[in-house]
Amino acid sequence: MNTGVASHGLQLRSLIRGNGELELSLVTLDTPQPQPDEVVVRVEATPINPSDLGLLFGAADMSTATESGTAARPIVTARVPEGRLRSMAGRLDQPLPVGNEGAGTVVAAGSSVAAQALLGRTVALFGGAMYSQYRCIKAGQCLVLPEGTAPADGASCFVNPLTALGMVETMRREGHTALVHTAAASNLGQMLNRICIDEAIGLVNVVRTQEQQDLLSAMGARHVCSTGSPTFMQDLTEAIAATGATLAFDAIGGGPLAGQILTCMEAVLTRSASEYSRYGSATHKQVYIYGALDLAPTVLTRNFGFAWGVGGWLLWPFLQKIGPAAAQKLRQRIVAELKTTFASRYTKVISLAEALKLDEIAVYGKRATGAKYLIDPNKGLTT
Amino acid sequence: MNTGVASHGLQLRSLIRGNGELELSLVTLDTPQPQPDEVVVRVEATPINPSDLGLLFGAADMSTATESGTAARPIVTARVPEGRLRSMAGRLDQPLPVGNEGAGTVVAAGSSVAAQALLGRTVALFGGAMYSQYRCIKAGQCLVLPEGTAPADGASCFVNPLTALGMVETMRREGHTALVHTAAASNLGQMLNRICIDEAIGLVNVVRTQEQQDLLSAMGARHVCSTGSPTFMQDLTEAIAATGATLAFDAIGGGPLAGQILTCMEAVLTRSASEYSRYGSATHKQVYIYGALDLAPTVLTRNFGFAWGVGGWLLWPFLQKIGPAAAQKLRQRIVAELKTTFASRYTKVISLAEALKLDEIAVYGKRATGAKYLIDPNKGLTT
Repeated sequence: MNTGVASHGLQLRSLIRGNGELELSLVTLDTPQPQPDEVVVRVEATPINPSDLGLLFGAADMSTATESGTAARPIVTARVPEGRLRSMAGRLDQPLPVGNEGAGTVVAAGSSVAAQALLGRTVALFGGAMYSQYRCIKAGQCLVLPEGTAPADGASCFVNPLTALGMVETMRREGHTALVHTAAASNLGQMLNRICIDEAIGLVNVVRTQEQQDLLSAMGARHVCSTGSPTFMQDLTEAIAATGATLAFDAIGGGPLAGQILTCMEAVLTRSASEYSRYGSATHKQVYIYGALDLAPTVLTRNFGFAWGVGGWLLWPFLQKIGPAAAQKLRQRIVAELKTTFASRYTKVISLAEALKLDEIAVYGKRATGAKYLIDPNKGLTT
Repeated sequence: MNTGVASHGLQLRSLIRGNGELELSLVTLDTPQPQPDEVVVRVEATPINPSDLGLLFGAADMSTATESGTAARPIVTARVPEGRLRSMAGRLDQPLPVGNEGAGTVVAAGSSVAAQALLGRTVALFGGAMYSQYRCIKAGQCLVLPEGTAPADGASCFVNPLTALGMVETMRREGHTALVHTAAASNLGQMLNRICIDEAIGLVNVVRTQEQQDLLSAMGARHVCSTGSPTFMQDLTEAIAATGATLAFDAIGGGPLAGQILTCMEAVLTRSASEYSRYGSATHKQVYIYGALDLAPTVLTRNFGFAWGVGGWLLWPFLQKIGPAAAQKLRQRIVAELKTTFASRYTKVISLAEALKLDEIAVYGKRATGAKYLIDPNKGLTT
């Protein structure tokens, strides 16, 4: 039983060839017949997250991008610099679908009761290949949204909300009581700010500009420090002292920032030390790097003793660690607070073809807070 | 009851003044009367470990060092560069005793049975202020050495042996099966090499020169890679592939080495991957920085996915974590294998006054493998 599902649909693909050429294009796929436990979702809203850009562009230098093809079927090509091609070895010559998450309408369902129950419902999805008109997926992977929820409101149900909640959960599980967050004016940062205000958790928001500082302050953030300020290190130290943060989540990754956070934490911890220890404070200070907004090397000036750690943090291993029951509780909270705590703002809604326009890529591809795009893969294509 | 204990003795002190001047000197102290549970040890052998240099020189630039005073009471002064003085805030204007560990003869004992039982015995000590002719210490902190052990053979019973054993224990507790060690030709590295050969643990030794490579190979090391070789990265990758190491202990700290180890580990882990993941391998890779032979910043070129950690590692928090029973087992093993697994070699034995000679400082202060000094604080002073 199918409701308004076309026999075929477009999907965005990213291909890096062995010769170092990136090619982004749209392909036409037959819409799959769902298996008994599957549904077909007409994807109507799917965000472009920083985590999607990594797969979309790979290691390509997008300043070399050129556009060809037609308006309906654009093709973008760009060069992967020689030195970075090796890091792409695992994906060479495979046209990869893109798009971690999205939302849309269930337009076809397999024969199982669970699948049939979803027919016509608006659902949120996670699992890749969301930059597609139609996405076939297991019914159990769909998060059913309350009646009347617009797909755009449910498009970012997973990556940002679960990451924000995961940070707070990690803080508690690892024995910290407050935290620092960088790139804090992002959609994710705003969610984290709302969670921390709600739960009275000390949060130090690190941003890059006065404008972002003002935005977060207007949203009730108590501690906002800008790396653009000449007093950044003092401001960060005082905010850490006020909150007692010994944990940070850093979306930037490159440059001195992760180390600066540790330096300020250590300065606060040794302020109150009664006796000199050349090994520094005994309190463990941790920075988790969960993004790569700056691809430059991480530079740690180790003036923060020996009780420290810097490491990668990813949402999915974290969810595996806490187990399905705990993860389900987080998802229920997200659905309940979709229009408040977990609301996302988008600068623009574009079609799949528009996503392959160089002038749009120049905006959504720059990994900067404040230009968040939503793709509607069916924009202008279905009714 | 005292046996051959003088009423006073020399102690080496390190002082950094608020004006940025480091002063190293010898002071005369009255030999303390031991409390009931204490003993007085005539220290006869105490090593200069890299961990002692940190306290001895602080942040001073030893290329600015000058010598004054007399041959018996030399004074060394040097400048702490302005930018590094802040990191010394906790120790300014306090003359600090130095020397983490040592061995000697119990020459006086308090009234308790435990203290009296040690009289005349050769014991190994840990606890600071070992660059002293006489060290008063709790009887329970003494590690009694087998009859006939020379103090020089027991001088390094704690820092290096416990660190080497702590690395292997950490490897097991954190679920790794093999490890990488840098500065691997050091006394500590040689101990670790012997432990790993004994226990058939895969060990990748990273050294800086062909000479050190030859030394370790002659000692039975199977995997030795030199950072001085043009094929270092390939050599390290192959050694990691052969051993399956996903853990490293790094004594260098500064520069690209910690990150290079993670890069090579990730290259091995993704070799066998059947599917491309832009987040890298899911296997956690860990580098613990336990020294600072290079004070330059740690530079991490993050081409190793998100399942990684870099952090500080210190022996004492580790021992606290494993608890006194487990720590005691490690100490027993060290005493039993003092002349084999845990044997140390020293380049030279010097007196306290000689430790304050610029030409000796130039050798033992350079934080390089192959010039290990032992101080005999009673050299030429007692019979």
